[in-house]
Amino acid sequence: MVAHPSSGPRTVGAGNGQIVISIHTEPQPTDLGDVRVTNRAVVLRHVRLHAPCSRADIAARTGLNKATVSSLVTELIDRRLLRETGLTENRVGRPATMLVLDGEPYAALGAQIAADELVLAAVDLGGNRLLTWRRAFATPACSPADTVAALAALTRRATARLTAQGRAVLGLTVAVPGLVDATGSVPVATELGWRDVTLAADLRAALREPDLAVAVDTDANLAVLAEHRHGGYAGTTDLVHLTGGASVGAGVVAGGRLLRGSRGFAGGIGHVGLVESGPACGCGRRGCLTALAGLPAVVGRLLPDADADGPVTDYLPELDRIQALARQGDPAVHAALTEIGRDLGHAVAVLANLLNPEAVVVGGHLAVLSPWLLPAARSELAARTHAPGAGGCRLDASTLGPTAAALGGATAALAGIESGRLPAH
Amino acid sequence: MVAHPSSGPRTVGAGNGQIVISIHTEPQPTDLGDVRVTNRAVVLRHVRLHAPCSRADIAARTGLNKATVSSLVTELIDRRLLRETGLTENRVGRPATMLVLDGEPYAALGAQIAADELVLAAVDLGGNRLLTWRRAFATPACSPADTVAALAALTRRATARLTAQGRAVLGLTVAVPGLVDATGSVPVATELGWRDVTLAADLRAALREPDLAVAVDTDANLAVLAEHRHGGYAGTTDLVHLTGGASVGAGVVAGGRLLRGSRGFAGGIGHVGLVESGPACGCGRRGCLTALAGLPAVVGRLLPDADADGPVTDYLPELDRIQALARQGDPAVHAALTEIGRDLGHAVAVLANLLNPEAVVVGGHLAVLSPWLLPAARSELAARTHAPGAGGCRLDASTLGPTAAALGGATAALAGIESGRLPAH
Repeated sequence: MVAHPSSGPRTVGAGNGQIVISIHTEPQPTDLGDVRVTNRAVVLRHVRLHAPCSRADIAARTGLNKATVSSLVTELIDRRLLRETGLTENRVGRPATMLVLDGEPYAALGAQIAADELVLAAVDLGGNRLLTWRRAFATPACSPADTVAALAALTRRATARLTAQGRAVLGLTVAVPGLVDATGSVPVATELGWRDVTLAADLRAALREPDLAVAVDTDANLAVLAEHRHGGYAGTTDLVHLTGGASVGAGVVAGGRLLRGSRGFAGGIGHVGLVESGPACGCGRRGCLTALAGLPAVVGRLLPDADADGPVTDYLPELDRIQALARQGDPAVHAALTEIGRDLGHAVAVLANLLNPEAVVVGGHLAVLSPWLLPAARSELAARTHAPGAGGCRLDASTLGPTAAALGGATAALAGIESGRLPAH
Repeated sequence: MVAHPSSGPRTVGAGNGQIVISIHTEPQPTDLGDVRVTNRAVVLRHVRLHAPCSRADIAARTGLNKATVSSLVTELIDRRLLRETGLTENRVGRPATMLVLDGEPYAALGAQIAADELVLAAVDLGGNRLLTWRRAFATPACSPADTVAALAALTRRATARLTAQGRAVLGLTVAVPGLVDATGSVPVATELGWRDVTLAADLRAALREPDLAVAVDTDANLAVLAEHRHGGYAGTTDLVHLTGGASVGAGVVAGGRLLRGSRGFAGGIGHVGLVESGPACGCGRRGCLTALAGLPAVVGRLLPDADADGPVTDYLPELDRIQALARQGDPAVHAALTEIGRDLGHAVAVLANLLNPEAVVVGGHLAVLSPWLLPAARSELAARTHAPGAGGCRLDASTLGPTAAALGGATAALAGIESGRLPAH
């Protein structure tokens, strides 16, 4: 770490007292228009985190001068992004009106395309959920075009409902379990049986809504965004979310930003070989995390008779059985989950060593089985991490449930507003 | 990846045409002072990359208005950060004077504390090397205090020389092979035999130069900074550098910024177990990358008789022997290096899957032996990476030589100026 210089030019604090000298961020030319956009983002963020608050509070805490704050607040109230609550502070002198985010006239949508369901979630400006729909859907059995049509139909229904409530829908961001490239296309999503699906373009064509911003991202990235905004470690600058499910993937927030990599393919941890002579995986390798701890692998290891009546296509009932057996204290189940927990801990140690996150949060079936997986995982993590105290890396279950990625997608769809850009009038 | 919204509010381009919507960067309140600092950084960066260039060029390419550019350039010339070359462009109308960085009145220092040497390097504002000193030093055999004293003495001699040339030394950043925390202390550096060394504080005390900014970072981080600024993949936003030597570590640039992790302990790849029943490592584990491909491990595998005359303390002559044998085509050496190359490729695949870098660059002995290591490593990387085409990840040897981390340290010491903060008058 770069230590503080003992003296020298005035350095700019970054709020928490840490000096932030970044020689690698490409400095952007700043004109007064950009200043206003940035300051608008600062005001919105402050209100999001500290509402209710007064104009004077915002000025005092952000360092912006009062005239600027006043002008921005007026504009944001006019655009229905902020509103006055009518509450006033108790203070000597003139009472100050308190401000909160105005949730009412806007909504953002997030969706998940999973192997067994489509999820649609909507949030208001404050991130509060307005609706969460889960529609069972056998995606691998349908064509991508049929899946897009089904998702578009859900989206239209949700948009109609929100519009009837007087809200403008700002955007839709869709989560897929697979790789997503810079154009919003999906080169491969094994769980869905997809190859080279131009999802963003197809969805825009199906929706025919030019004012609705449509984006696509991986379920791992959107789940970590949801965790970073709404989860137990919200605001943590270095955070990893491991998706559960048929394939295990990592969403990584590093230095407060989503880590995408050079082509958007970062986060692959599911097919890194951990155990040389381990079980074979559909990817062709042996002993990778997916083959050790993915949902089908867990079911196969714990309920070897599960496919006696035919191949398992829906793993959730089997997961329920495993959870019930574990709660009853079944020793064979406990022993197997301990072993799987150790493999999980091994993988988390790779992440902890390389990324030094403050926390790794597991979702999906890993969260459901966390009481029996994580103790062994934490021991393995501690044993395999090089930095003292595992670099302080916590390992916990997500609290956001199975629709975390849809929530993250809706959060991502708010990005434009949150960065200070005003929505179309 | 988030795809471009189909319509909607005006988005700000980021120079390369990519829309950068970052909902996770904490927006900083911007006042006019910050605007000037940022714009100063923009101008300096533009000149660094495109010199010689005119004021009009800067305005046209950065989007800053001409009056702003003119005012900043005047200030930067006055502070000897830019200078006019006297060249003029051929153009219709008034000739335009060209600008370049002014290297002369400033220098920045970087240092490396290695197991067998101390390195000191100085650069000017443009990153050109002014001096590079390598002083053999048996660090593990000395106390940390003696090492600090020796480095301080070297620093004083270099500073005296640069001062005599009319240069002000802005700062010193020191590279160590180990963990470095936020205070510039070293909790552990196994290669040096160090535990809990308060290096930055001790060095400041030994130097007694309050105007010299002293910082400490890992050799892996500073080597990747050097690579990012001066190497074959300079400017790449997602880049990894693997240090060679007694321990193998990773320096990671992700999204254009150094990835440090929550406590500054990111980059640990050297002690991740790759081969279950592999050779034992000093860290207590088996089959980790350091035990498979670190310099002592390579020497031990290829020259099992190397310690016949007593324990090897200086590995460089052995490395020379291995290189000579490889050049002569020794089949046993080639076979062993191919095997080690595969282990290296396995580790690089972990990095490629998780981080999706554009390139992984290897340094130290890995660079020296790269002709015989990398072909096998690249095959293994391709076989073990999940994204198509290994996500495009290149694997190459560093071109910066064994003093890359010192060069990176000197580059880091320029951070204040490069971010637009003026040096003390």
